Amino acid sequence: MPSIKRKIINDPVYGFITINHPLIFDIIAHPCYQRLRRINQMAMAQLVYPGAVHTRLHHSLGAYHLMGQAVTELRAKGTVITEEEEIAVKAAILLHDVGHGPFSHALEHQLVQNVHHEELSLGIMNMMNEDLGGRLTLAIQMFTNEYPKPFLHQLISGQLDMDRMDYLTRDSFFTGVSEGVIGYDRILKMLVVQDDELMVEEKGIYSVEKFLIARRQMYWQVYLHKTVLAGEKMLVKILERVRELYPVMAESLRTYGPLDDFLSNETAAQGVFSMEAFCRIDDNDVMFAVKKWSSHSDKVLRLLSTHLLNRKLLKCHIQAEMVPEELILRERKRVAVDLGITEAESGYFVFSGEATNTTYKLGNEHINIAFKDGKVRQISQVDNPLIHQTLSTPVKKFYFCTMAGTK
Amino acid sequence: MPSIKRKIINDPVYGFITINHPLIFDIIAHPCYQRLRRINQMAMAQLVYPGAVHTRLHHSLGAYHLMGQAVTELRAKGTVITEEEEIAVKAAILLHDVGHGPFSHALEHQLVQNVHHEELSLGIMNMMNEDLGGRLTLAIQMFTNEYPKPFLHQLISGQLDMDRMDYLTRDSFFTGVSEGVIGYDRILKMLVVQDDELMVEEKGIYSVEKFLIARRQMYWQVYLHKTVLAGEKMLVKILERVRELYPVMAESLRTYGPLDDFLSNETAAQGVFSMEAFCRIDDNDVMFAVKKWSSHSDKVLRLLSTHLLNRKLLKCHIQAEMVPEELILRERKRVAVDLGITEAESGYFVFSGEATNTTYKLGNEHINIAFKDGKVRQISQVDNPLIHQTLSTPVKKFYFCTMAGTK
Amino acid sequence: MPSIKRKIINDPVYGFITINHPLIFDIIAHPCYQRLRRINQMAMAQLVYPGAVHTRLHHSLGAYHLMGQAVTELRAKGTVITEEEEIAVKAAILLHDVGHGPFSHALEHQLVQNVHHEELSLGIMNMMNEDLGGRLTLAIQMFTNEYPKPFLHQLISGQLDMDRMDYLTRDSFFTGVSEGVIGYDRILKMLVVQDDELMVEEKGIYSVEKFLIARRQMYWQVYLHKTVLAGEKMLVKILERVRELYPVMAESLRTYGPLDDFLSNETAAQGVFSMEAFCRIDDNDVMFAVKKWSSHSDKVLRLLSTHLLNRKLLKCHIQAEMVPEELILRERKRVAVDLGITEAESGYFVFSGEATNTTYKLGNEHINIAFKDGKVRQISQVDNPLIHQTLSTPVKKFYFCTMAGTK
Amino acid sequence: MPSIKRKIINDPVYGFITINHPLIFDIIAHPCYQRLRRINQMAMAQLVYPGAVHTRLHHSLGAYHLMGQAVTELRAKGTVITEEEEIAVKAAILLHDVGHGPFSHALEHQLVQNVHHEELSLGIMNMMNEDLGGRLTLAIQMFTNEYPKPFLHQLISGQLDMDRMDYLTRDSFFTGVSEGVIGYDRILKMLVVQDDELMVEEKGIYSVEKFLIARRQMYWQVYLHKTVLAGEKMLVKILERVRELYPVMAESLRTYGPLDDFLSNETAAQGVFSMEAFCRIDDNDVMFAVKKWSSHSDKVLRLLSTHLLNRKLLKCHIQAEMVPEELILRERKRVAVDLGITEAESGYFVFSGEATNTTYKLGNEHINIAFKDGKVRQISQVDNPLIHQTLSTPVKKFYFCTMAGTK
Repeated sequence: MPSIKRKIINDPVYGFITINHPLIFDIIAHPCYQRLRRINQMAMAQLVYPGAVHTRLHHSLGAYHLMGQAVTELRAKGTVITEEEEIAVKAAILLHDVGHGPFSHALEHQLVQNVHHEELSLGIMNMMNEDLGGRLTLAIQMFTNEYPKPFLHQLISGQLDMDRMDYLTRDSFFTGVSEGVIGYDRILKMLVVQDDELMVEEKGIYSVEKFLIARRQMYWQVYLHKTVLAGEKMLVKILERVRELYPVMAESLRTYGPLDDFLSNETAAQGVFSMEAFCRIDDNDVMFAVKKWSSHSDKVLRLLSTHLLNRKLLKCHIQAEMVPEELILRERKRVAVDLGITEAESGYFVFSGEATNTTYKLGNEHINIAFKDGKVRQISQVDNPLIHQTLSTPVKKFYFCTMAGTK
Repeated sequence: MPSIKRKIINDPVYGFITINHPLIFDIIAHPCYQRLRRINQMAMAQLVYPGAVHTRLHHSLGAYHLMGQAVTELRAKGTVITEEEEIAVKAAILLHDVGHGPFSHALEHQLVQNVHHEELSLGIMNMMNEDLGGRLTLAIQMFTNEYPKPFLHQLISGQLDMDRMDYLTRDSFFTGVSEGVIGYDRILKMLVVQDDELMVEEKGIYSVEKFLIARRQMYWQVYLHKTVLAGEKMLVKILERVRELYPVMAESLRTYGPLDDFLSNETAAQGVFSMEAFCRIDDNDVMFAVKKWSSHSDKVLRLLSTHLLNRKLLKCHIQAEMVPEELILRERKRVAVDLGITEAESGYFVFSGEATNTTYKLGNEHINIAFKDGKVRQISQVDNPLIHQTLSTPVKKFYFCTMAGTK
Repeated sequence: MPSIKRKIINDPVYGFITINHPLIFDIIAHPCYQRLRRINQMAMAQLVYPGAVHTRLHHSLGAYHLMGQAVTELRAKGTVITEEEEIAVKAAILLHDVGHGPFSHALEHQLVQNVHHEELSLGIMNMMNEDLGGRLTLAIQMFTNEYPKPFLHQLISGQLDMDRMDYLTRDSFFTGVSEGVIGYDRILKMLVVQDDELMVEEKGIYSVEKFLIARRQMYWQVYLHKTVLAGEKMLVKILERVRELYPVMAESLRTYGPLDDFLSNETAAQGVFSMEAFCRIDDNDVMFAVKKWSSHSDKVLRLLSTHLLNRKLLKCHIQAEMVPEELILRERKRVAVDLGITEAESGYFVFSGEATNTTYKLGNEHINIAFKDGKVRQISQVDNPLIHQTLSTPVKKFYFCTMAGTK
Repeated sequence: MPSIKRKIINDPVYGFITINHPLIFDIIAHPCYQRLRRINQMAMAQLVYPGAVHTRLHHSLGAYHLMGQAVTELRAKGTVITEEEEIAVKAAILLHDVGHGPFSHALEHQLVQNVHHEELSLGIMNMMNEDLGGRLTLAIQMFTNEYPKPFLHQLISGQLDMDRMDYLTRDSFFTGVSEGVIGYDRILKMLVVQDDELMVEEKGIYSVEKFLIARRQMYWQVYLHKTVLAGEKMLVKILERVRELYPVMAESLRTYGPLDDFLSNETAAQGVFSMEAFCRIDDNDVMFAVKKWSSHSDKVLRLLSTHLLNRKLLKCHIQAEMVPEELILRERKRVAVDLGITEAESGYFVFSGEATNTTYKLGNEHINIAFKDGKVRQISQVDNPLIHQTLSTPVKKFYFCTMAGTK
């Protein structure tokens, strides 16, 4: 019998995921990685798509699985990837999201301001590297694009990286939104490395077309769905109210848990927190807090929390034009009267902004296409009107949230 | 344009679920129902099957969907079901699990002893009935089998009810365990009502065979998987330790949240809790508590909590025979030494028991088969050796949990 | 037990298809309908997509199934459709393709010139109507759009008819081309009838977008795939060669089967055939003939037949511009030498044309969108750049087939 | 760009199948292999399951795909398989069914008596080996189990070979019978080689259980479905009638195609046919003949052919006991009168026999299980009552076909 330790994990998306290297076992067993089990991949999307409750841990396992397939495909086409590089690039993708905090994107820059989640990922990877005796060093080089073969970094973070391949596929699967199916298996078959850069074979253009369009549909149907947005903005407003109240009523806001270190403006804004403290918080802490605050003495905080908890969400509109200031002011007046709060306070229930999503950012698509004649062209230079249209469509929209009338 | 309010919900399992009746909208909007969003359907199964994070809310929506299909099928075969009955039976299935507490089966009879979750469901349904102006009365009659047409109750709670149809289908889907696919759509097509009793057409015997076998596979591969069991028993042990410590160190155990009402032995054992208090607790409270207790001064509680959190699970064996007492005692001695605790305390890490699952109970299968010749036979009287075998296979097994050696 | 005769048919695409009306049973049992079992839905596409061997019978059963769902949806939204109309519209969709001849589109206008397959369908429906005692009269009125409620005709034949819904879904399923998944279930949920016209609710615009893009992808990846086209054009060329040879060597071309009535130019061109004779031919007759002709004394016929049979297909290019005449002439010279045939004969191996497909025709999209404000707009007037792009993209391309060199 | 020629084929079952070796390309391009494109995998099953029209070519490509996965898995567990062996075992599985004649099992031993299809496969493989310059020699050794590593043969032909894995999976997929899903991916992960023998890891016992039960369900629900059986037996009876008539009316029975060499008793019984002649016949020839014979002067032949063509099938019963002779005789009398034929002739419409299927044979299951303790046990010795039951269930049943009354 073989002595190589192997484990297979059932995944409804890909069937089975195989773990067969000591370093991968050690990463998965690490508490920082296990924490991802308690962070929902899609934040508040489950308020609209009840199946969207999969975790960051599940997503990163999926991306790891695709990385294995990509390595196999590229090798079959003659690209040299050593055994050591394979493990490193798999370790890196497994850890690429390890810096996500509670409710991922929804609360990014809220709990911890001015720090992108990739910086946090790097910080935690460095911390883990000590625990793992330096075995993550190569993975970290690839993650930060300091490794000589750029295509390995591009597989981790680039327009067609395994992160995007998995999250679009997985989010589409768990939401049940078939429009988001990207055809990851075909794209993987079309990847090729030329001059150490990752690109797509010419005959894969239709797959790229499908990928771009599917992603666009996921944006507007799922990630920036007006009701999902409403839920996520309410969570943001709750945190904002807590910060505002904190200087005067810190005690009543405490959860008596690890989140308490992240409630004041000081911690959040200036990043005066330890990596260890950050690794202690997850979705449970935030939900526990929201439940607690749903009976807080401050009316604004109490209402926002109660309504989010019971899915009595703000009404949200998405539109192409900016929301006129006078509409906002008029609504704030109305809501202030309805709720018996000040007009300033009613800004927590009536507000507008740009409907974008920091991570799922569009634009600046650098996908290289390797033509049969040996030339390499940017996707934007390829003769495909649908791709042009998709790439050039303005992605900026505006949202307007308010509270339904009480009549 | 139609004025009937309709909403469709994406479900990765069935495609779309349609909501089109005011009562159903009102049930779903109720805080007691929304609470199910925060209760995982499969408790600790996600420690083995990372996709198994779907919620009780999702399951009950699915069962509601199947109920609609069953009603349509039965009507097409000539069974009379009035509009009013249809809404009531759908309302009942939507609420059949509303009494589940945190971590569902895993903690059943732990937080609230001596009360089955169906009693709690009934209690909450009665409470909701007041809020909804008595519109749940008919549904409650069906739920408690006091309505004159027994088949409507059987669709809610019986060997082939929509609850089982959905949970087996859904759990199989989210775990990725294809062995558990039951073929619900074919079974639904085979249902028929005779003398107001729900039964299966003769030609559906193979579907029943498949259903019974798939269910059996889900039992042993998923619900009673040794590692899932280990995780769930650790959670139980954590609660038991808390109860033991409570009389002397209540303060340090407090979460400052709604779970605090359920920590002492008194509340749990004698059911001295209000329905309102019960409706305030969910998975977040328990996980928040476990995280808190992972730094508690009591070594047993601290270790159990930390290990569960970081998925350092007890080793668990499932076997056909009872576990010999001397093995248990020997292991307890070893573990007491390893951990530096007393032998009594090591009982929290070394223990055995029957591997059964109170809700997913086997045995006593009363499935009626309607033969073409007009006769009705019990499934156990049908000439099908595989079904006999499945029904008669001893389902009692024993588990033995212990801690891995530290060498 | 119910006395209504019901039958369910397994369908890998939709699960189960229910047959529950005497007229539907009688249509399906008719020899003209059973003939569809022997006509491949996708002609030569299986040369590229080996799974694409599903039949016209299967497709029409699928469209019938979707029709049932559409009727249910529309009724739920308040549209009146009587029981009689329901059966008629289902009968019509079941028979919409009954006039397809061998290899469907690939040989359309070849075996029978100047007659569209819908005319043939109508002819056969009239013939069947006599056999069925006039019970198809209403269905025929709907098919020919003479029935007062136009939306019923639009469900049979229109931009969003059940024919398209099924063939795109089914062809995508059996080819395995996931890019062609249209999301038929969501579109069905979005259909609505206003002023007796079929339209799509405003919130279904993304679904229409997806539908149009998926259809476009099926066009270029499947229906007009260069290798599929090569196979289908070779079959056309075989028939053309047979016609050319027929006046002088009819005897050697005979198959001694029903196809013989369709080999001469006279029969084909002037439609001097009986409906009965047409109903006797299917794919088997054509393949039998091709096999026979693969050892014919005429070199051109023999080579074309042998190569098609053994999948030694002509090389085919698809391009945006017309193929220059001199390229064609140069290639014909080369191939004439290579094969030892005349330059005129080499026109059977080297040719070009427009890559279009008579049935799967694009352009002229009249999809009405019903806005929430009560207005109805054409899809082309909706503010969605991707839809505009898809609709306005030139769909005309050119193909060029030739024979690979023998070096 | 890589110079290795690679091609991917869309497969709705597995996604993509990769072809990347010159020998595999050459096998696929061979006319003997392309012939499989014209042989339906499931013969007459499409009369009940309209989707079941996939071909032998598609099945063998699928088995080839699984073989690639099996090789990868076994290598990952330390089993040495050289590059050369890999190509050979893939070539062998690609060709394992190349000897199947028209309508596969349904007509096995009818067109060619006393010769099993595996013998024919071997004959054709030898013929192809000459065309391919001896490059199939190693594959043939594996196919005939003359190669030193028996597990390679077992992957081609054994209880858990890639043939069974694919046909059960594929037949289940195309029929839409979800009961037949075997979970091939999990079984592949559980394969292991010990002492050069193929076996299953202990933890794969549930997968074997599922495999055996799924196969059993496919038997009775699909392969030996009473209506499928009726269709296939009718085809056999047609051939039998042709043989009987042949000596006196050969001319009128001729198809003027390659099937003519196989119509007389002499050719069939004594195997006096050339391999070349055998390779010329496929399903088209048989269907063409049946269509022709549907207007033959012999009433028995005419009726059988017409009825099969139009799906007016004999009524068929499957039962556990032998069919009493007197019932058969009584029915023959009735049918003779009904049809106006002799009682001897009515034997073509009324007959009984054992419902078995030569290829899909059950019994004699030698599946080795490799236990963790190092021991190897036969599956029949494993403590699993469901497997025992499945293995020991009598698989012999009897069928009785007759013609429905004309009243």
